[in-house]
Amino acid sequence: MRKRLRDLGITIGRLPPGKHNAITDVPAVFVGHSTLIFDAPRVARTGVTVILPREGAIWKDHAFAATHSLNGSGEMTGVLWIAESGMLTSPIAITNTAQVGTVHEALNNYGYDFGWTEVWDLPVVAETWDGWLNDMAAFHVTKDHVYQAIESARSGPVAEGNVGGGTGMICHEFKGGIGTASRMVSCPSGTYTVGALVQANYGAREDLRVDGVPVGREISIDKVPSSRAESAGGGSIIVIIATDAPLVHSQCKRLAQRATIGLARVGGIGHHGSGDIFLAFATGNQLLNKTQAPYALKMLPNDQLNGFFLGVVEAVEEAILNALTGAETMTGFRGRTAYELPLDELERIMKRGH
Amino acid sequence: MRKRLRDLGITIGRLPPGKHNAITDVPAVFVGHSTLIFDAPRVARTGVTVILPREGAIWKDHAFAATHSLNGSGEMTGVLWIAESGMLTSPIAITNTAQVGTVHEALNNYGYDFGWTEVWDLPVVAETWDGWLNDMAAFHVTKDHVYQAIESARSGPVAEGNVGGGTGMICHEFKGGIGTASRMVSCPSGTYTVGALVQANYGAREDLRVDGVPVGREISIDKVPSSRAESAGGGSIIVIIATDAPLVHSQCKRLAQRATIGLARVGGIGHHGSGDIFLAFATGNQLLNKTQAPYALKMLPNDQLNGFFLGVVEAVEEAILNALTGAETMTGFRGRTAYELPLDELERIMKRGH
Amino acid sequence: MRKRLRDLGITIGRLPPGKHNAITDVPAVFVGHSTLIFDAPRVARTGVTVILPREGAIWKDHAFAATHSLNGSGEMTGVLWIAESGMLTSPIAITNTAQVGTVHEALNNYGYDFGWTEVWDLPVVAETWDGWLNDMAAFHVTKDHVYQAIESARSGPVAEGNVGGGTGMICHEFKGGIGTASRMVSCPSGTYTVGALVQANYGAREDLRVDGVPVGREISIDKVPSSRAESAGGGSIIVIIATDAPLVHSQCKRLAQRATIGLARVGGIGHHGSGDIFLAFATGNQLLNKTQAPYALKMLPNDQLNGFFLGVVEAVEEAILNALTGAETMTGFRGRTAYELPLDELERIMKRGH
Amino acid sequence: MRKRLRDLGITIGRLPPGKHNAITDVPAVFVGHSTLIFDAPRVARTGVTVILPREGAIWKDHAFAATHSLNGSGEMTGVLWIAESGMLTSPIAITNTAQVGTVHEALNNYGYDFGWTEVWDLPVVAETWDGWLNDMAAFHVTKDHVYQAIESARSGPVAEGNVGGGTGMICHEFKGGIGTASRMVSCPSGTYTVGALVQANYGAREDLRVDGVPVGREISIDKVPSSRAESAGGGSIIVIIATDAPLVHSQCKRLAQRATIGLARVGGIGHHGSGDIFLAFATGNQLLNKTQAPYALKMLPNDQLNGFFLGVVEAVEEAILNALTGAETMTGFRGRTAYELPLDELERIMKRGH
Repeated sequence: MRKRLRDLGITIGRLPPGKHNAITDVPAVFVGHSTLIFDAPRVARTGVTVILPREGAIWKDHAFAATHSLNGSGEMTGVLWIAESGMLTSPIAITNTAQVGTVHEALNNYGYDFGWTEVWDLPVVAETWDGWLNDMAAFHVTKDHVYQAIESARSGPVAEGNVGGGTGMICHEFKGGIGTASRMVSCPSGTYTVGALVQANYGAREDLRVDGVPVGREISIDKVPSSRAESAGGGSIIVIIATDAPLVHSQCKRLAQRATIGLARVGGIGHHGSGDIFLAFATGNQLLNKTQAPYALKMLPNDQLNGFFLGVVEAVEEAILNALTGAETMTGFRGRTAYELPLDELERIMKRGH
Repeated sequence: MRKRLRDLGITIGRLPPGKHNAITDVPAVFVGHSTLIFDAPRVARTGVTVILPREGAIWKDHAFAATHSLNGSGEMTGVLWIAESGMLTSPIAITNTAQVGTVHEALNNYGYDFGWTEVWDLPVVAETWDGWLNDMAAFHVTKDHVYQAIESARSGPVAEGNVGGGTGMICHEFKGGIGTASRMVSCPSGTYTVGALVQANYGAREDLRVDGVPVGREISIDKVPSSRAESAGGGSIIVIIATDAPLVHSQCKRLAQRATIGLARVGGIGHHGSGDIFLAFATGNQLLNKTQAPYALKMLPNDQLNGFFLGVVEAVEEAILNALTGAETMTGFRGRTAYELPLDELERIMKRGH
Repeated sequence: MRKRLRDLGITIGRLPPGKHNAITDVPAVFVGHSTLIFDAPRVARTGVTVILPREGAIWKDHAFAATHSLNGSGEMTGVLWIAESGMLTSPIAITNTAQVGTVHEALNNYGYDFGWTEVWDLPVVAETWDGWLNDMAAFHVTKDHVYQAIESARSGPVAEGNVGGGTGMICHEFKGGIGTASRMVSCPSGTYTVGALVQANYGAREDLRVDGVPVGREISIDKVPSSRAESAGGGSIIVIIATDAPLVHSQCKRLAQRATIGLARVGGIGHHGSGDIFLAFATGNQLLNKTQAPYALKMLPNDQLNGFFLGVVEAVEEAILNALTGAETMTGFRGRTAYELPLDELERIMKRGH
Repeated sequence: MRKRLRDLGITIGRLPPGKHNAITDVPAVFVGHSTLIFDAPRVARTGVTVILPREGAIWKDHAFAATHSLNGSGEMTGVLWIAESGMLTSPIAITNTAQVGTVHEALNNYGYDFGWTEVWDLPVVAETWDGWLNDMAAFHVTKDHVYQAIESARSGPVAEGNVGGGTGMICHEFKGGIGTASRMVSCPSGTYTVGALVQANYGAREDLRVDGVPVGREISIDKVPSSRAESAGGGSIIVIIATDAPLVHSQCKRLAQRATIGLARVGGIGHHGSGDIFLAFATGNQLLNKTQAPYALKMLPNDQLNGFFLGVVEAVEEAILNALTGAETMTGFRGRTAYELPLDELERIMKRGH
């Protein structure tokens, strides 16, 4: 792993980050990766990343949640169930486009194997396309990799860049991948954490901005060649947003849609082929399965949400940038190379900027 | 007013109705009508019906709510705000298609005049088209009529048929109008009331069914001529559903969509020109405006909603039929006559039916 | 296979069916099943059903399409992509809940293996739950079964009842499964076909109606025991609607939502655990992939859609009933038996009815 | 009127604007304003702006259209009808929050008076809140003002800033109002125009950016006091997008959602009380009312839309900035003053920026 954006002295926005500046700053949210990098018998540059709310007990202690699709050129399973129930009832996994099926069935299996579900569940599996660096037709990801990602999931710092589902991803024509960030949000009801995790695989270089500075067009292609330039702007981004605030479904929906704004600040415009799909969940209420009595809930008044909106925007913006600064140059399928965002250039440009 | 369906010995479904078999069985839900029937200077067969949750205090003590559009060939203002906030924050009014504007501005005025709103609100006004019996271009409804409907709103029995917004409506080619019904729903968390009020102005005669019996096609056109036959199947239906259960926005959305099923049982198919728009609200939680602390809420588990779904279906089905049995033959604009559903025929057919 | 509803002299609605009264009456729509019924080493009562628009060439010649979720307690992959593109771009498969993943990956594989897709696709896989009769944890369905269902897909009559994805399904507490029906629709622009195929696995017996007659409550439980009574009303229904009319996305959406009305006529109310998800596609326009020039399209005016709405309602209603009359009594997992709808009783009750 | 952004030597994005850099560059799109500025008997700083596609003949020659709500804390009537029909079938009007009703009824009247509609229509009226500068409770806007705005509507340059519905608006704590811009978009199918018109009344000063430069926080409050600072971030923005490309409903929906990205670039984050509602329509196909034969349409392939997405983003971004540079300092209700964005400061900051 390389550096995080803040290690370069660049900060985004005005809200303070949480302890690890990661989605895991939201209490009991675990992240795990399974990363596949090998060359034989076929080239693998792929993996799976899992997000386990409530340390994994989300299967039985649900969380209010909602999704937003900025651009539905992608897959996120479970979206109809989340809209209907208003809740997330399973872990979340992100992988490559071809293996949504493998990971979906593995999650079903896991829930059953470990006694989380009596019957079958409707898990959330999302994807972005890594076929430029990864030999996707080899279907490298297996059930075991999913189990391993779940078992390795932890709180604390999150590996970024070329890890998990983000291993083979490309962002704004530089090497992309997994990134995360968080913000502390204060409102009359208290202080809460908002965290974002992205699998960033979208965007054209010329649109890349860092805190408003047009970094992408300042980095010469002669110096750093473009990656996947033939389909620049293609790709996709999955954004997962977590908070420990007591928000309900309709409020999670508002948070999910605000991811668009963080993405826009970095330079995303939702290109045609880009599956830009966002999910937000809130753990501030317990929603135990198989309950007889009505749930006793707390809910923030809607007019206290502005800080959360800003928190989402800033955390998404910084999470994408952390994916870029964290990812390292990678050579993969068919000898193609995706080049990392040059940190020295970034620092130079930012100093000159506003 | 004529009879209600149950006065004819016909019952719908298996759940018991509330005390008045009306939406007003939901505590603190008031209904008021302003009915305009006169011939000079221009023919009026129109009006406005208002529904005031919390005895009108809905402006300050909001209620979770949601809408569903089976067929958006109509208008219901406020739907974006309800989706965004998850709540109903104003009274509801139903009128004719041309006067959504008048009624919308009148509600804005009323909230301001009576100190309910400091700033301007986003009220809910819905409509169906009464231009067959009513000279709509005369714009009969005024601000005063809206105020009068609000002032006259009460709990208890609700006038049905040719009243309020339903005055000039036509349903399954018979005289239609306002109808209401309610159901008592028991679940592990307790017993609650579900009520429905409809402004019924849709449907083809041949599709009309009462408890499954094809009543419409059994009533000869020679005996009872068709109303508005040239656009049979046109028109619209607005359905308002209320409950005192502690449901949140996403659950209200499920209730609202179930209105389709009640409508389908009577014979609605959502014809092209028919604005079939439904709103459900739940008063089981208090959501006071201008609150600092988080709301303390109750929420029924989703797996306790089946009784509510059935309650909505049955209440909507019976409310439409009450509109039909309550409405009387009316002659109006251009000398046109809309004939009431003949109750003796109805009883005869139902006895012969299953 | 047993009988179809019309073989019993019972007709639904007033529109004429197509030649085979099946979704395959829509030109170039193929249906194939892979049915798994065996007892060792573990009990299998499951399978997969595929629908191939354009004889399978849908991968390259897309079709306008849309989905509607009456009740999102289920999965249908690809819904975000269909909403975004307005099109169906892959075959459709229906299977059991646990194996959405297997089937999803198999479709991805198939498209690649047979040269339909250069890159990876976002296929449509839907499901209902067969765990009462089928040992779902055995994960019986494999990639080969999916390929076999595709290879066996044909035009002409469609096997119904205990076949394909419908093998282990239960409907209104009788044995359910796959059913299909079609209608011919005339409008000023011409005559078109509307077809429906359902995988019916929902509903309570007491709600079952045939052409309005309350058949379900007329069949004594002493005579025919209930199936899966402990979760009566659970289950799900997937409805696929096809037409050869030149409809666009927004019009397909209207058709998809009308499936609710056909379902309501049979007695569905969208119980909490029931994934009631509908997809409609229209093949009346060719939408070739990788086109440079604008598509030249035809589109029916919206005010010519009423016949299509009625066609959907009637076809869905009859397709569900065909699933019931086609399915045979089946004993499966843990020795449980799901009993078929008794046809002699059905005929007797219908003669007595209206 | 003051200057437009480009008059200051500042350009946004990389696509070329149309002739007038206005929504009226889209052929046959007319814009008209009715502006009310007077002090007695009560303070008026309000008005209405109308957009007439097809030189006003939109009532009979419809256009594919769609809406997107980034934040539904506002009103746009007609959204259910646009979603259902896929089309815009009336002019569009934008006014203040309290007078949606007046304007709605006036449009209904106009359509009837001038023979555009036989029956009643479902017009589009949107709003933002001008109660800080305008005595909204005086209900200044009348039917005559709406007629006058329609009659004055023209092609060519569009008045910006303190005009029409934008008269009393405030944006990023500076004086806001109406703004417009356009872009020329080339794709394999040809070259088309995309135009945007905004009524900008949202945002916090500290979030304002011009081409990424944080202009808002560079302008000292000591120099230029904040407007409506007590509810900074409140307000709303309505965005209307037009194109002459042959796009269908689902594609207009994609364009509408992209307005979020243009807004985000300027610094919008969709604050709680902000009604951020967008409508896009495409005139590239004729959709005559009362047609018997199927429409013959053209439709761009989805993979040619990236230029349109970028065009929307850039046009929305520049339209908002044109509202800011065009608006002049205004004193109004209760002696409050909203200060214009200082152009000299803007130029100075931009020169220093990247």
